[in-house]
Amino acid sequence: MSYKITPLKNDTFLRALMRQPTEHTPVWLMRQAGRYLPEYRAVRQKAGSFMGLAKNTDYATEVTIQPLDRFKLDAAILFSDILTVPDAMGLGLHFEDGEGPKFERPLRDEKDILALQVPDMANLQYVFDAVSQIRTTLDGRVPLIGFSGSPWTLACYMVKGGGSKDYRTIKSMLYGRPDLMHHILRINAQAVAQYLNAQIDAGAQAVMIFDSWGGVLADGAYQTFSLDYMREVVRLLKKEKDGVKIPSVVFTKGGGLWLDEIADIGADAVGLDWTVNLGKARAQVGHKVALQGNLDPMALFSNPEQIRAEVKHTLDSFGKPAEGSGHVFNLGHGISQFTSPESVEVLVNAVHEFSQQIRKS
Amino acid sequence: MSYKITPLKNDTFLRALMRQPTEHTPVWLMRQAGRYLPEYRAVRQKAGSFMGLAKNTDYATEVTIQPLDRFKLDAAILFSDILTVPDAMGLGLHFEDGEGPKFERPLRDEKDILALQVPDMANLQYVFDAVSQIRTTLDGRVPLIGFSGSPWTLACYMVKGGGSKDYRTIKSMLYGRPDLMHHILRINAQAVAQYLNAQIDAGAQAVMIFDSWGGVLADGAYQTFSLDYMREVVRLLKKEKDGVKIPSVVFTKGGGLWLDEIADIGADAVGLDWTVNLGKARAQVGHKVALQGNLDPMALFSNPEQIRAEVKHTLDSFGKPAEGSGHVFNLGHGISQFTSPESVEVLVNAVHEFSQQIRKS
Repeated sequence: MSYKITPLKNDTFLRALMRQPTEHTPVWLMRQAGRYLPEYRAVRQKAGSFMGLAKNTDYATEVTIQPLDRFKLDAAILFSDILTVPDAMGLGLHFEDGEGPKFERPLRDEKDILALQVPDMANLQYVFDAVSQIRTTLDGRVPLIGFSGSPWTLACYMVKGGGSKDYRTIKSMLYGRPDLMHHILRINAQAVAQYLNAQIDAGAQAVMIFDSWGGVLADGAYQTFSLDYMREVVRLLKKEKDGVKIPSVVFTKGGGLWLDEIADIGADAVGLDWTVNLGKARAQVGHKVALQGNLDPMALFSNPEQIRAEVKHTLDSFGKPAEGSGHVFNLGHGISQFTSPESVEVLVNAVHEFSQQIRKS
Repeated sequence: MSYKITPLKNDTFLRALMRQPTEHTPVWLMRQAGRYLPEYRAVRQKAGSFMGLAKNTDYATEVTIQPLDRFKLDAAILFSDILTVPDAMGLGLHFEDGEGPKFERPLRDEKDILALQVPDMANLQYVFDAVSQIRTTLDGRVPLIGFSGSPWTLACYMVKGGGSKDYRTIKSMLYGRPDLMHHILRINAQAVAQYLNAQIDAGAQAVMIFDSWGGVLADGAYQTFSLDYMREVVRLLKKEKDGVKIPSVVFTKGGGLWLDEIADIGADAVGLDWTVNLGKARAQVGHKVALQGNLDPMALFSNPEQIRAEVKHTLDSFGKPAEGSGHVFNLGHGISQFTSPESVEVLVNAVHEFSQQIRKS
């Protein structure tokens, strides 16, 4: 499937990522297409399963667009999962109701690990088809973000099979058999880069790497087992498409202590969770990268007045944007499924309202 | 019950906390009296339940001493739970097998919250009796640490009743009804201070505040809802007993980004988890506080050679101790119940061996 190149009606998000001036602070929300929306739940029910939804181009397109029809969001993000790559490697991704993702065939034996291969990207064609169709459907309303899990985050799930409280299985391998760990991570880095580049070819206008589990690593281990492989992914990424710059965002949840190092791997922007002081982060690395974040998703569980105050606090913490700095408003983590859509509306409108005021001040 | 004052045979731990020179780096492990030891599991079975164990003076004494008989640890820590204070407030602490602590009567109604009182310390006499008996039994082998959960960490359990994935219940109160949150925290701070002071009276030679859940808070909220109340506890603590200094340690897991502020609340030492670079932390605040930590507990799930290498790495990261600096070796979190006691022995011996070498280098 091919897509028409339509000029963007709203490129605020891309300009902020490239640290160019914008009229307001662009806003999107991690997991903005998701269970907190009744219209999402309706499609999810028709699809039968999470992967049934993700693998159906029409459904994936429909739920990607849903939040844009409700809220004045400045970007769309592909509806998919961070774990599609290991699924394409043959590990068998599945979701059980009320639980996180799991793999049917986790990597446990040395033999299986050494046999691991970068998957045939044809196994991921459903993702690229969704990207193309979403891009066509968006028709230039806002830019489309493609994404993947980070090599380390994918490995966490690949080795353990599912979520973990203390990361004992994967850390036992990390500390006891670092050679096997590095073998998996090298392959993951190649696979993630190919996967993101194919999303760019299909029409993604920015890409984001979700390092959801980098923050569980020890200082030192983080750099060796997560950051180095994200640097490799970023190095391999296409930097432009048809002469248009494709910005990249890296986000290590719980990575605030390593901000200087993260800002140095070559990505255009760094995602921040709510533990980070946005003003300090800007002073530290704001001249090198744009910053994306970082309201606590739980701040949406209060009243409209309080939500507006928290939005203002976040914008004030970053401060008045200036040439050479960039801020994209987001939550510090995915939106909770229990959030009221009305609260999201209050948030999105408040970001636009207050960020315009700050620019005039 | 009274205790004999016996001069300490090994006061390395107390001297390190006060940033005085020591011959080796003292070491103890959070949850060192616990399920990874078969002799602990035997007593736990006799006691019938976790609280049955904690409330029986003889059992609590026995399990506190157990790890000292196996390993050359430099401190003992009272066997108890961080949640004894809200239990004494009448919330009904209980443990279900394979699950974390829960309260039978969590604080949900405004009426219940406003009725909350600092508990009668007589309800906690079993803790003070255990402290006295352990101190007598130790007979000066090593110092005894008393402890409590932080006001915020207690509140997390008190409001929710048990553990939580996204802290939605407590954060909804924090963002939506900060007045109620502060009411609970004010009472908790008073209660924790009284509780720790009574442990000091009973014979605790150092005290530690475990802020296990401070790290889930947003920047700004951490300072307002956790740190300020720990500062109040530290202010109210007895600084000495019978003319002997009683040092205090505060530990916010996930608090590395707030190290400067934590080091300023008046405690003698700050606990660090494994995400923190010990060398950087020393450069930042090592002239103001001793540092305690910070090996990843999962590093014990490897072979002896690798455990020794990780211990050496941690000691090297802090660097050669000098007058005015102090390091207490510990894990960055409680030891896992699945740890092999043989691995703990390797760790403890390696800390002593390498830290003596570093001092001679």
